[in-house]
Amino acid sequence: MAASRSSSTSFSNASTSPCAACKLLRRTCNSDCVFAPYFPDDQSQQFANVEKIFGASNVANMLNDLPIHQKGDAANSLIFEADARVKEPIYGCVGAISRLQLEVAQLQKELCSAHTGIDRYGVYTAGQEYKGSAYGGASASF
Amino acid sequence: MAASRSSSTSFSNASTSPCAACKLLRRTCNSDCVFAPYFPDDQSQQFANVEKIFGASNVANMLNDLPIHQKGDAANSLIFEADARVKEPIYGCVGAISRLQLEVAQLQKELCSAHTGIDRYGVYTAGQEYKGSAYGGASASF
Repeated sequence: MAASRSSSTSFSNASTSPCAACKLLRRTCNSDCVFAPYFPDDQSQQFANVEKIFGASNVANMLNDLPIHQKGDAANSLIFEADARVKEPIYGCVGAISRLQLEVAQLQKELCSAHTGIDRYGVYTAGQEYKGSAYGGASASF
Repeated sequence: MAASRSSSTSFSNASTSPCAACKLLRRTCNSDCVFAPYFPDDQSQQFANVEKIFGASNVANMLNDLPIHQKGDAANSLIFEADARVKEPIYGCVGAISRLQLEVAQLQKELCSAHTGIDRYGVYTAGQEYKGSAYGGASASF
């Protein structure tokens, strides 16, 4: 997956500093803080983006709805999505999807042309082989 | 862009029914409603997804921050993104991006192989031409 920075972050609530979320939201960072494992105190910009785009309570709800082993990936994809929306306020992630879809279409077109080229060479080669045997010339094996 | 349904929706606040947003939020749909042009009353599911993922006030802020001619595209990309997150709660749009990136990588690999194949045929053809002239056989033109 595109974002995989903090999924393995170990969270120690014995830490003296609150997580990036609790710092921004000015609240006490408890041992059961839903944000702390995924938004450690050095990820303040990431959480600020996520909070601006999705809202803290929506993010908490989305994380709470998932089993523990999926929360890290979900947090990282939310970070990625929020970052894309901050950088590209009209299209967000959908801009990247559109560009990739165009790239796929372009590559498929090029691949189709390349295969047509190979087929033409194949016809040419088969013709050479045929001419070779019909007129007693050298075989086309090279 | 992937989503372009309601960008050209004309909004008449003279309509008797409130927009999908005001209906869900149980508020009066005024003539200056920020949601109404992009979430007409038949788009209740789309607004419900957008509200669940981004929150109504965040969506209003994002739309208000954009010039009028960009609000439609922004609303449609938010609808697309929210729909992706509802369907795929862990990865949302990022899942589609990852799949497209894999598809691009696969196509680039296939294209590279195809070009290598064309180059080999080219070497082969050049060799045939050379053999043809060296041994007095038929020319390679076909």
